[in-house]
Amino acid sequence: MRQDRMASRNGGVRTQMHDARAGRITGEMEYVAARERLSPEFVRSEVARGRMIIPANVRHHSLEPMAIGIESRCKVNANIGNSALGSGIEEECEKLSWSLKWGADTIMDLSTGGEIDRIRKTLIDRCPVPLGTVPIYQAMERVERVEDLTIDLLLEVIEAQARQGVDYMTLHCGVLLEHLPLVAPRITQIVSRGGSLMAQWMIHHHRQNPLYEAFDDICRICAAHDVTISLGDGLRPGCLADATDEAQLAELRTLGELTERAWAKDVQVMVEGPGHVPLDQIRRNVELEQEICHEAPFYVLGPLVTDIAPGYDHITSAIGATMAGYAGAAMLCYVTPKEHLGLPGPEDVKQGLIAYRIAAHAADVARGRPGARDWDDELSRARYAFDWNRQFQLALDPETARAYHDETLPHEAHKNAEFCSMCGPKFCSMRISQEVEAFNGREATSAAPEEEKAGTTVP
Amino acid sequence: MRQDRMASRNGGVRTQMHDARAGRITGEMEYVAARERLSPEFVRSEVARGRMIIPANVRHHSLEPMAIGIESRCKVNANIGNSALGSGIEEECEKLSWSLKWGADTIMDLSTGGEIDRIRKTLIDRCPVPLGTVPIYQAMERVERVEDLTIDLLLEVIEAQARQGVDYMTLHCGVLLEHLPLVAPRITQIVSRGGSLMAQWMIHHHRQNPLYEAFDDICRICAAHDVTISLGDGLRPGCLADATDEAQLAELRTLGELTERAWAKDVQVMVEGPGHVPLDQIRRNVELEQEICHEAPFYVLGPLVTDIAPGYDHITSAIGATMAGYAGAAMLCYVTPKEHLGLPGPEDVKQGLIAYRIAAHAADVARGRPGARDWDDELSRARYAFDWNRQFQLALDPETARAYHDETLPHEAHKNAEFCSMCGPKFCSMRISQEVEAFNGREATSAAPEEEKAGTTVP
Repeated sequence: MRQDRMASRNGGVRTQMHDARAGRITGEMEYVAARERLSPEFVRSEVARGRMIIPANVRHHSLEPMAIGIESRCKVNANIGNSALGSGIEEECEKLSWSLKWGADTIMDLSTGGEIDRIRKTLIDRCPVPLGTVPIYQAMERVERVEDLTIDLLLEVIEAQARQGVDYMTLHCGVLLEHLPLVAPRITQIVSRGGSLMAQWMIHHHRQNPLYEAFDDICRICAAHDVTISLGDGLRPGCLADATDEAQLAELRTLGELTERAWAKDVQVMVEGPGHVPLDQIRRNVELEQEICHEAPFYVLGPLVTDIAPGYDHITSAIGATMAGYAGAAMLCYVTPKEHLGLPGPEDVKQGLIAYRIAAHAADVARGRPGARDWDDELSRARYAFDWNRQFQLALDPETARAYHDETLPHEAHKNAEFCSMCGPKFCSMRISQEVEAFNGREATSAAPEEEKAGTTVP
Repeated sequence: MRQDRMASRNGGVRTQMHDARAGRITGEMEYVAARERLSPEFVRSEVARGRMIIPANVRHHSLEPMAIGIESRCKVNANIGNSALGSGIEEECEKLSWSLKWGADTIMDLSTGGEIDRIRKTLIDRCPVPLGTVPIYQAMERVERVEDLTIDLLLEVIEAQARQGVDYMTLHCGVLLEHLPLVAPRITQIVSRGGSLMAQWMIHHHRQNPLYEAFDDICRICAAHDVTISLGDGLRPGCLADATDEAQLAELRTLGELTERAWAKDVQVMVEGPGHVPLDQIRRNVELEQEICHEAPFYVLGPLVTDIAPGYDHITSAIGATMAGYAGAAMLCYVTPKEHLGLPGPEDVKQGLIAYRIAAHAADVARGRPGARDWDDELSRARYAFDWNRQFQLALDPETARAYHDETLPHEAHKNAEFCSMCGPKFCSMRISQEVEAFNGREATSAAPEEEKAGTTVP
């Protein structure tokens, strides 16, 4: 399927959106429809209107296509990548394996340290899920100072990555020169790495954002390889106090404009969102994005619902992410326990992914997606039946569930014991419940009215 | 203050509610008002109408009074206590210290194993926060089978615990015989330990719940010692599929009736709530409780928003707890990572409390409680100033935040470094942001219109 895709040419435009609008159901759409239990025609119509994306670079041969949008399951992205202070190709491949093992739906390689090209090439070859990048990180490797960046260099990097098979790219095209004074009242100013680099460039040259000015050229490259543009939110808030402020909304309006410009060229788009947002503002943030960006899929980073818990930001942000997913966000970018403190290792990647798969699944259940709750129900049935091994198998993290249980009750004989060490045998409500069930069974089968009145149906 | 309280007598009724209704502001109300930044008169009026409770047994001398209600900060309870399969007095005292260290607002001793009286006595003496119990657990120790329980034995245990200084008691008075057939369609039937014991008793004797029948006697004991009744939800759902069903709502209506009956005797009340609830049903659950139980403080167990993640139920439930607190729940009962798997140890107690303090604080911020966000803002300012030591100090768990940071940057010199290992120095958005701030400062101070037009204000 993917081979056919690379070969096809539509006058330089090879995007899923282009085919969808022409009424063609691609192999990728068929594949996605089966995964999502949707009809291929519905997938096509969603891709055509831009409400669903299938990030699938024509050269990413190992890809198993997937969809991001409000009508499909809520997805989770895992960020990996090195920094100047740590990690190489082996560590990054290990993080990739862990991310896939723990259920990442897409992977972003955010490497800013050495060997960026080699790491990405290796990751793409091994990656069955869409791989995203932030091209400005690699562009920065080629210059000494940010002000030395040129639009030609940026386009060169974007095109090289597109040829390599990158499925989506975060591009901070919407931070404009006129937005910068709006961040003045903020506590944490600009916290997006790409956004702050663009701001620094604009300040130095006192010129407009080159990624904004060259947006049509960027779209041409993306259309030729089917790279989805992930419109970066360079002015996303970095703390609760800065959430939903004028700087954030001004950039969001620009992202809405750019969404339409990309769609006019059949380029697939998603829109990135905050960051740090109090719980009561999350639904409003999702609704604003849907309105201003014409329902392009919303890809949120958390958001964290409090700033007080460094070391636990996988939890502070999973809370916000669940709410965002419930309100309609299409993909959740995970946050690891190391956020704000250091570069995550494999165990952090696992913890971040577990928290975010919980968030995405809980959002799917809350939105009432067909079949979403089946997993919960199946595990609950195993729980009620005291089938401990089945419970562990069904658990999101079977190893941990089993290990916690076995800390106090390690023997195989306890794997169908009618209690655990939390309550002990005498107080196990589920064991007792089975007597209630028997009682209800008897009540139902002996419903002769005279007996009921006499109160003799129960021994 | 607490000594005076023990001495006072109002015709056998010594509750905060009694004084509040008589227009008296007690020492406890004054103390609570200062802690909550509310006026003493407002606290009095809230206690009088039952919307705020001050669980403060007249004999609990070491208590530092606190309040639970929609108008005060959202609170967190930690459950400790042994089971037949593990833990003794030393382990329980260690869990108490950990619970207090990590910020529990109240403690419940749920011991069901041996030495229940001695453990409780020791805990009350050392406990500056309200201590709650579930008396039926101790009553069960005195009988061989649940059907041997009598109302006299139950009242004896309740009175003995009241004399010992227990501040609040979970009593499953609302599970009625006629509710039991309603659980038949459920996947996990009855999951409350107390609820299932009462159900078993009722089925055996085919008689009404003795705690319901003797409710006035219970109120008399509670009024004499100022024990707050925590109306247990014996029919709370044990999985998403069973949430907000007719069994749960039938019991809730009984709890509403019992709330009014307790209030008629000046007894303080809170109402316990679920359990396992999909995110989209949580607000409705809180609103139903407020309506049916006349705004008595709602004390929820989580709820878990998905059943798929045993081993991580501190996270699945902190998500639901944040939503519940935001919707108006007054206290959140923590859940540890060992939930459904085994008896929690001290590290589990810590992990549960951290997750729940995040939930309660995020709920306070979302409800816009005055001053709630100050902590977030202060930490964010330290973050932007690269004052790492201050960040660690302000963190909910300073030790963990520092340890995570120091994994890659252990030297003291890095404690004011303008980057961490996550992004490295070249990509630190906060460092770059400070240049933007300088730019905005220059813009603001050189606002001569002709210069702006000429575009020469920036180098």
